[in-house]
Amino acid sequence: MKIKINNRPLILVTNDDGVTAKGIDTLINVVKVFGDVVVVAPGRAMSGMSHAITTRIPLYLRTVKKEEGLSVYKSNGSPADCVKIAVNYLLDRKPDFVVSGINHGSNSSVSMHYSGTMGGAREGTLFGIPSIAFSLLDYRADADFSTASYYVGEIFRWVFEHGIAKGVSYNVNIPPGDNLKGIKICRQAKGRWVEQFERRVDPRGRDYFWLTGYYDNHEPDATDTDEWALANNYVSLVPCSVDATDFESVERLKENGLESVPSHIASV
Amino acid sequence: MKIKINNRPLILVTNDDGVTAKGIDTLINVVKVFGDVVVVAPGRAMSGMSHAITTRIPLYLRTVKKEEGLSVYKSNGSPADCVKIAVNYLLDRKPDFVVSGINHGSNSSVSMHYSGTMGGAREGTLFGIPSIAFSLLDYRADADFSTASYYVGEIFRWVFEHGIAKGVSYNVNIPPGDNLKGIKICRQAKGRWVEQFERRVDPRGRDYFWLTGYYDNHEPDATDTDEWALANNYVSLVPCSVDATDFESVERLKENGLESVPSHIASV
Repeated sequence: MKIKINNRPLILVTNDDGVTAKGIDTLINVVKVFGDVVVVAPGRAMSGMSHAITTRIPLYLRTVKKEEGLSVYKSNGSPADCVKIAVNYLLDRKPDFVVSGINHGSNSSVSMHYSGTMGGAREGTLFGIPSIAFSLLDYRADADFSTASYYVGEIFRWVFEHGIAKGVSYNVNIPPGDNLKGIKICRQAKGRWVEQFERRVDPRGRDYFWLTGYYDNHEPDATDTDEWALANNYVSLVPCSVDATDFESVERLKENGLESVPSHIASV
Repeated sequence: MKIKINNRPLILVTNDDGVTAKGIDTLINVVKVFGDVVVVAPGRAMSGMSHAITTRIPLYLRTVKKEEGLSVYKSNGSPADCVKIAVNYLLDRKPDFVVSGINHGSNSSVSMHYSGTMGGAREGTLFGIPSIAFSLLDYRADADFSTASYYVGEIFRWVFEHGIAKGVSYNVNIPPGDNLKGIKICRQAKGRWVEQFERRVDPRGRDYFWLTGYYDNHEPDATDTDEWALANNYVSLVPCSVDATDFESVERLKENGLESVPSHIASV
C-alpha cells in the first residue's frame, strides 16, 4: 500500500477540524504549489485533542481522493496518529514537511498545549521533519481564509528555503480580517483559560457540565508575546521546543538537596 | 455542591489509568498523610490522552466515595478535564497541590507529550498550583508500587516544604524493582518512538491498524537525561516548563528576515 512518490518535495498535511474543513482545504491549496501533497486527517472534528494518541482501539485509514500530486486519506485517529500512520505506514519516504491546520480558532499562548493542530505538528518534529501548525482566529466553519492563505504561503516558502531547527515546531496564529500588519516572531504569552462549567440536568435528573471559558492574559503589557502580536493585528509565530525541560530548575534542584533523600530503603 | 474544606492542606489527585487503578490508590495513600485529599479521576482508562480537553460533549461528575479527609469522584473527562472541573466547579478553594498518577508505565523523555498523567499535572501548573506527575515503569495492572510509594512520599514531602517554581511541573518516573539508587534531577532525553502499525483485516475485508512500537534513545551516552537515570536504576525527576518557547530560535528568526515579508497584501 506504500504510495510511490516522485522526486518533488513531499508535504504531509493534517489538521484537527477534520478532513472536510475549509481550513485544511485552504492549506492544501497553498502548499501544493511547492510539491506533492499527501493529506492524512481525522474523519471527524478532533479539537482539543492535544498530542493524544490512540492505543486502545485500532485505527482505520480510508482513501478520500487521489489525483495528480494530491492524495487524501482520513482516519479515526488524532492528528498525531495521522502523522504517525502516514510516516510509518503509508509513505515510502519521510515527508519533507508537515503542516497542520489551518485551524478554525486560536491556538496561541497556553492553548498550544490543548491543540490537536499543534499535536500533529509536534509529532512531525519528533520525526525530525520541519513542521508548522497554522491557526486562524475565527472559529466559524465558513471563516474567510483568504488573507490567512497569503501568510501561510509566505511562512511556508520561508521554511521551504531555510528549514527549521531540530526539535522545534512553529506555532503560527493569524488574526481574522484582511488588514494585517505582517509577521512577528514571538514568545508564548503567560496566561490561562478561566473556565466556567455550565451545569445542566439530564432527563434522568443527573447533572452534566459544559466546559466554557475565556482566556486571561497574565502579561497584557508585554510586547514580545503572541497575544500582543495578535491583539495588534500581526501574525504571530512562536518557535516551540519539544524539549520541555526547565533547565533553570534542573540547576537549582540539583543544588538544594532533592537528590539526597535516603536511598537505603530495602526495609520500607 | 462546593465541598467544604477545613484548613488542612488540600491535595487534588488525578490519573489517566482510571479511578480504580492500583497506582492512584497508592498515590492517595501516600499523600493523605499530608492533608485532605480530593480525587477527581477518569472513570475509565485514558492512556495517551496527553493534555486533551473535552469541548464537544458534556462532562459528568459522580461521587465514588466520601470519608473523613478523602473524597473520590469520577468523570468521563480526560485528566486535564478532571483538574479543571475540580478547581473550577467542585472545590471551594484552590488546591495546594495537584498530583497525578501513579501511572502504570513510563512517561519519560518525549512520552511526556503523549501522557495523560502529565496533562493532568500540567493543567494544575496552569492554575498556578505546584503539580507533579508520577509514573512507574511497569504497565501491569497489578504492578508492585511498594518501593515507588516511598519515593513518591519523599518527593511530595520535599515539594510540600519547598514548592515548585511558577510555570513548572515535575515529571517523575520510577524504575520497577526494590533496589533503587536514589533520585536524579534530569533533563528530558532526546529520542522518539519508532512505531510499527500492525495491519489486520476486519470481518468485512477492511484493513485496520494497531499502533505498536519501541522507544529509541538518540543519546544513550548522555548521563544527565531521564532515560539514563532510569536505565541505571535511579528515580528521574524532570522539571518541565509550560512555556514551550524556544528562545534561541526567537532570536535567530528575528535576525534573518522572516518578519520582513510584505505586509501590503490588500490585493492578494
